[in-house]
Amino acid sequence: MSTAPAALIIGAGDATGGAIAQRFAREGYSVCVTRRQRDALQPLIDSIQSAGGVAHGFGCDARDEEAMIALFNQIEAEIGPLDVVVFNIGANVRFSITDTTARVYRKVWEMAAFAGFLTGRQAAKAMLPRGHGSIIFTGATASLRGSSGFAAFSSAKFALRALAQSMARELGPQGIHVAHSIIDGAIDTDFIRDNFPERYALKDQGGILDPEHIAEQYWQLHCQPKDCWTHELDLRPWMETF
Amino acid sequence: MSTAPAALIIGAGDATGGAIAQRFAREGYSVCVTRRQRDALQPLIDSIQSAGGVAHGFGCDARDEEAMIALFNQIEAEIGPLDVVVFNIGANVRFSITDTTARVYRKVWEMAAFAGFLTGRQAAKAMLPRGHGSIIFTGATASLRGSSGFAAFSSAKFALRALAQSMARELGPQGIHVAHSIIDGAIDTDFIRDNFPERYALKDQGGILDPEHIAEQYWQLHCQPKDCWTHELDLRPWMETF
Amino acid sequence: MSTAPAALIIGAGDATGGAIAQRFAREGYSVCVTRRQRDALQPLIDSIQSAGGVAHGFGCDARDEEAMIALFNQIEAEIGPLDVVVFNIGANVRFSITDTTARVYRKVWEMAAFAGFLTGRQAAKAMLPRGHGSIIFTGATASLRGSSGFAAFSSAKFALRALAQSMARELGPQGIHVAHSIIDGAIDTDFIRDNFPERYALKDQGGILDPEHIAEQYWQLHCQPKDCWTHELDLRPWMETF
Amino acid sequence: MSTAPAALIIGAGDATGGAIAQRFAREGYSVCVTRRQRDALQPLIDSIQSAGGVAHGFGCDARDEEAMIALFNQIEAEIGPLDVVVFNIGANVRFSITDTTARVYRKVWEMAAFAGFLTGRQAAKAMLPRGHGSIIFTGATASLRGSSGFAAFSSAKFALRALAQSMARELGPQGIHVAHSIIDGAIDTDFIRDNFPERYALKDQGGILDPEHIAEQYWQLHCQPKDCWTHELDLRPWMETF
Repeated sequence: MSTAPAALIIGAGDATGGAIAQRFAREGYSVCVTRRQRDALQPLIDSIQSAGGVAHGFGCDARDEEAMIALFNQIEAEIGPLDVVVFNIGANVRFSITDTTARVYRKVWEMAAFAGFLTGRQAAKAMLPRGHGSIIFTGATASLRGSSGFAAFSSAKFALRALAQSMARELGPQGIHVAHSIIDGAIDTDFIRDNFPERYALKDQGGILDPEHIAEQYWQLHCQPKDCWTHELDLRPWMETF
Repeated sequence: MSTAPAALIIGAGDATGGAIAQRFAREGYSVCVTRRQRDALQPLIDSIQSAGGVAHGFGCDARDEEAMIALFNQIEAEIGPLDVVVFNIGANVRFSITDTTARVYRKVWEMAAFAGFLTGRQAAKAMLPRGHGSIIFTGATASLRGSSGFAAFSSAKFALRALAQSMARELGPQGIHVAHSIIDGAIDTDFIRDNFPERYALKDQGGILDPEHIAEQYWQLHCQPKDCWTHELDLRPWMETF
Repeated sequence: MSTAPAALIIGAGDATGGAIAQRFAREGYSVCVTRRQRDALQPLIDSIQSAGGVAHGFGCDARDEEAMIALFNQIEAEIGPLDVVVFNIGANVRFSITDTTARVYRKVWEMAAFAGFLTGRQAAKAMLPRGHGSIIFTGATASLRGSSGFAAFSSAKFALRALAQSMARELGPQGIHVAHSIIDGAIDTDFIRDNFPERYALKDQGGILDPEHIAEQYWQLHCQPKDCWTHELDLRPWMETF
Repeated sequence: MSTAPAALIIGAGDATGGAIAQRFAREGYSVCVTRRQRDALQPLIDSIQSAGGVAHGFGCDARDEEAMIALFNQIEAEIGPLDVVVFNIGANVRFSITDTTARVYRKVWEMAAFAGFLTGRQAAKAMLPRGHGSIIFTGATASLRGSSGFAAFSSAKFALRALAQSMARELGPQGIHVAHSIIDGAIDTDFIRDNFPERYALKDQGGILDPEHIAEQYWQLHCQPKDCWTHELDLRPWMETF
């Protein structure tokens, strides 16, 4: 077991989670990353390790309470004390209300809110005895506004924001920094490149978010001294309408 | 089958739901009320009927999709076209984040948000072909603020608010009035009387909400002409801190 | 001096203020209406009086502290105790930030916020000794959102909303009901008819707000029993995007 | 005239403004600081210069349009292109609504909102031709909530927030980063030390904001790449109730 503190990114399957992992690895954290399929994490782990960092991958369904409890226990026992936990699972879907199935409404909530609850609670349990640590939740435009066609997604994102607020108010005075970042814009991902080419074409002029820049903000949040904590901030390309 | 329009109150087990049912019954609506145990609705139904109104009780778990679909179908087929649907199920619990079980977090969401989704979606399906109708969701202080100890409750109430917003933006331009009322204060109920006697003692000076007054506001929301709809309003005793 | 309670509408020069005056006159209030030019109020006063109501017109610049103090004193001394005061002055302008002159920025604030402060303060002074009364402020879309081109207008409307909130929190527990209504849409006025004909064409389908319907909501706000007060509500045509 | 970019802090009379000035000076900016009395800036200027930085002091009433225009022109002509402008004037007062004089209500607005408008507009005029630069407004708890006793202060702070929002939406797509920080807590100042000793006693445990930490956040805001801008963030001690 290393003496280095550990950072855990739940939902490191996308570009943002990966960039956050790399950012904390660069600072010497033992980085733990999860997604449902362990294998798919290998390129990220290789990349971190080849840069001299420490990374551990876990196949884990973040909606599975027992799996999540086991994950936190294993990290704390074998890798190091968790000093940063990032919840970064999204589940953006768009359906009219009448076309929203109960299965979709539930699944989006399980991925974007319930998994966030399990993550936040286990992070709190790990950090409270030590009286410090950061828990960061990734939000979206839909965290603040229930737009037409986003009943399921905004319900889940509003729920996650409520969780973050409640945890911040409870855990802040116990030394745990809980933050919620609102990503308001497209991120430079394969998904945007393949599905929104016009959007993606704005990349060269800074019209879509660079995952490394998001990661830098997460690092800065974690670095804030305890007299000067941010609970919520928005992150948005300069040309994004809001 | 009556020619009178129908009003459905999901969650008529408490004083507020009962008062809303009575208010709409007084205006000639065929009132349909639900709670998990059908028998417990009998006093309310008797009261409405003895005042000359029409009331139908249904034992129905609002989290059960098939039961909810059947309920809406039965009302539309046998009782009358739904012109008002009120979702009035709460699930106020308070636990520290580390004491919040996954079971509680999920159950509160199922009662206060998922059941609201099923209600809202089925109401939309019934009303859209006719191009009019009101869908009213009951919110709470926790709809706007995630306070310490309320991770589960505020997550569910935020989710319900997102649902209401999304539905309002989608269904408004199709003629359906979707409203969200934020009840910010104690209501005159047995629960408050038995558990918060100091609060209840404020009743004589108007310090707790009278369910009949809440019901009047719901009636007024439904009466708003379509050029002048309210999506969200708060309801609060004069002496309530906010 | 009548025994009837008085209602004062500051800014009755437009259709909304006029409709509010007529609504309260119909309920037996001695209605006092102001705008800068007394003469321009005559048609409104005639209309109220010919319907059997009581109306008094005052030429008054609501930004003039001495004039406002004198106005309130005169009404309380000669007409009746003020039970309702409505502040209804807008000042919607649109300029890019670099084209916004200091004169415009200041004038919009004076009309839409400073005059609201004078109105609210004098209403509070009149009502506090009696321990009841309603003070209603008219807000707009710009009360909640600073859109591009609306630096001056949204600054003033945000300020008015802060005033309403602060007064509600201070005066509510002293029996005074302070409310803020957010009018989110075009109103059926000559201004809209002449300048936004495409908008105005939506009138027949309820696409613009009818001043009488707004007035009805203000009346309903005033009628709320003190255990069930609304501080803020939005009013919007069914087809309005928000 | 230096080739170094200039930073202007309007309202550098307090600890926060001073710390921001020092932070940007450390990065090589030619720092311009203002307060009403030029002399009172000397210690700050000396401190920056003795650390090897460049600082210029200006006695300037930020509510005086001509003075502000002249100030911006002089800096751009003689010192360097403005790349950062911070508006940091507060005016926290507390009075019941009936004790709030028109003079106070107006003066607080002039200091906290009108001066902010003049600052923001002149900054926009200077930066727009170059297509980049940061404009940061300092907000407070009262920017989000009109509490009892804060009618004047919250009106002004709400107005400033509307200005910041409107400018962000207009100027963002033109390359100017407009941000609004909400300082929610006591700052380590002489004022807090002298007037709120119990609060000040929390300093050792991080219970009050260190101006240098606030300044660091302003620096970080300015450093954000243009695909990843924050418009609003809160800054709060870990133990602060919110």
